[in-house]
Amino acid sequence: MKNRYDVHRMLYYEVNERGMMMATISYVDDFSSWVHSFSFSIPIKVRFSDTDAYGHLNNTKVFVYFEEARIEFLKKMNLFSYDMPTMLVVRDMQCDYLQEVFFDDQLTVYCKVGEIGRTSVDLHYMAKNEKGEVVLTARGRLVQLSKETKRPFPWPESIKNQFSSFL
Amino acid sequence: MKNRYDVHRMLYYEVNERGMMMATISYVDDFSSWVHSFSFSIPIKVRFSDTDAYGHLNNTKVFVYFEEARIEFLKKMNLFSYDMPTMLVVRDMQCDYLQEVFFDDQLTVYCKVGEIGRTSVDLHYMAKNEKGEVVLTARGRLVQLSKETKRPFPWPESIKNQFSSFL
Amino acid sequence: MKNRYDVHRMLYYEVNERGMMMATISYVDDFSSWVHSFSFSIPIKVRFSDTDAYGHLNNTKVFVYFEEARIEFLKKMNLFSYDMPTMLVVRDMQCDYLQEVFFDDQLTVYCKVGEIGRTSVDLHYMAKNEKGEVVLTARGRLVQLSKETKRPFPWPESIKNQFSSFL
Amino acid sequence: MKNRYDVHRMLYYEVNERGMMMATISYVDDFSSWVHSFSFSIPIKVRFSDTDAYGHLNNTKVFVYFEEARIEFLKKMNLFSYDMPTMLVVRDMQCDYLQEVFFDDQLTVYCKVGEIGRTSVDLHYMAKNEKGEVVLTARGRLVQLSKETKRPFPWPESIKNQFSSFL
Repeated sequence: MKNRYDVHRMLYYEVNERGMMMATISYVDDFSSWVHSFSFSIPIKVRFSDTDAYGHLNNTKVFVYFEEARIEFLKKMNLFSYDMPTMLVVRDMQCDYLQEVFFDDQLTVYCKVGEIGRTSVDLHYMAKNEKGEVVLTARGRLVQLSKETKRPFPWPESIKNQFSSFL
Repeated sequence: MKNRYDVHRMLYYEVNERGMMMATISYVDDFSSWVHSFSFSIPIKVRFSDTDAYGHLNNTKVFVYFEEARIEFLKKMNLFSYDMPTMLVVRDMQCDYLQEVFFDDQLTVYCKVGEIGRTSVDLHYMAKNEKGEVVLTARGRLVQLSKETKRPFPWPESIKNQFSSFL
Repeated sequence: MKNRYDVHRMLYYEVNERGMMMATISYVDDFSSWVHSFSFSIPIKVRFSDTDAYGHLNNTKVFVYFEEARIEFLKKMNLFSYDMPTMLVVRDMQCDYLQEVFFDDQLTVYCKVGEIGRTSVDLHYMAKNEKGEVVLTARGRLVQLSKETKRPFPWPESIKNQFSSFL
Repeated sequence: MKNRYDVHRMLYYEVNERGMMMATISYVDDFSSWVHSFSFSIPIKVRFSDTDAYGHLNNTKVFVYFEEARIEFLKKMNLFSYDMPTMLVVRDMQCDYLQEVFFDDQLTVYCKVGEIGRTSVDLHYMAKNEKGEVVLTARGRLVQLSKETKRPFPWPESIKNQFSSFL
């Protein structure tokens, strides 16, 4: 269990010489190349009802943005449909909040494939503000279940190939 | 970077002999003792507007439940107040969805201290349904910032002691 | 159409001698007796994510509170169930915001029957804060539809009688 | 008080010969000319997290759509700004749900001025789906308050003129 905690500790924020918090993000190896590895995105405007009494975007609302990006991403691959014999369930989600986001910010929310499993896929997310700054990063696992058995169901090769093109 | 990916892989779901997904959760060492280590909780009823067209609790809404648990937890330590010279910001949040949650489920949402840093604290969360089943687990880092400098600000000893009693 | 506009005009707020806005609320005849005519209520705590950057409860969130009160009210009469041959749909909703509501306010949200129609019912709502001040009033029409024909479906006498006891 | 109830009764739904509910909407005189009187609109896509377990758009979420339309409308007139000496508060909101709305529906949400008061303005709203069908209608009163005195504050002539062009 030692390793796990070492990794855990690495995750978090150190104050660099300019006093800013630097996040080491567990699912990002090299930040710069990770940022450039996204090709799919959707625009999202921060709504007033997404803010809270602290005057900025409430931390709970970002997951709605990622859900919308994920759905559009899956629609592109014909994987978001009520009629499929399988269903995709969110197994986990995590978000790192790098910068404050405010009402009316025009975000670009990106989605890509992080890792392809036998019955699941790890999706990565990133949100940039209008200045091009990365304000949020995130990831989460989707698992494909058979609607009949409710058990994990392997991806067909065709889907795996589609995912590969968005790695 | 090898270790990181090993840990990452460990995270995810294996199908056990009964066909259920077993999650290995990155921030939980021993599941059984972790579950029993919580002492603080609040009740949360799942609202109808928290469900989605899949017929169950929408995955984005759980973070509202954790926020409410966190705030009540911090209020208990007099750490949630608009008048303080410091502010607490959410640095990251992650949730593992272990079981489906439905409208009208009466959840008990727990919060405890996972790890105390110099200027931050890692909080752990768990939600159980009425049958006592763990349906959600989560964690997230709070960082204390000076309102004046916006830089991370060390916890006083008194706060650290308070946190320690909820480890 | 003359009458309609006269009523419409009556609706709105006049500044009284103490400078406060006095609302004449279209669905309330005598405010004092209306306030005392409620017998059913549920408690609702204002969540942090229900606030907005103005520092108070966002106006869009109150309808979630009324929905929860309505559902609990209907459950009391065994009218909220997925298995019924009929369904209840919200035909309209309206809310008057009488006073500011803030994070952590402990509201009591009331529901009663305003008027019973052949296939519909007009529900009235009221929210009080901890000081006992009425902060919100609302009403909305529910229509009973047949799940099969999707047409309005008359209430049985037994339901009408139940409603009558909450007029 | 007789008139009020007559109007009230008129509001609601009659089943026409095709079995559809026809709403008589209190704030709309002639439906057809009202529909054509809007010139300002914004696009809104229905998000998955806006749906509920009934499989359609949850009735509480429409007010977020109207808020976004209102803000964009006010921004057009330079009336939405944190730096103004006055603030606009929502005094009431009401919505009529004419047709079901579903996930992924691309709505066009309209806003116009219904009536200009001395210190307030009545805004009207309408949402159409992609087929051009009116699915929602709404209205609500905004009151201008002085930030200093918190009392209603009269519109300057210039603002009244701006409003007039969107009547």
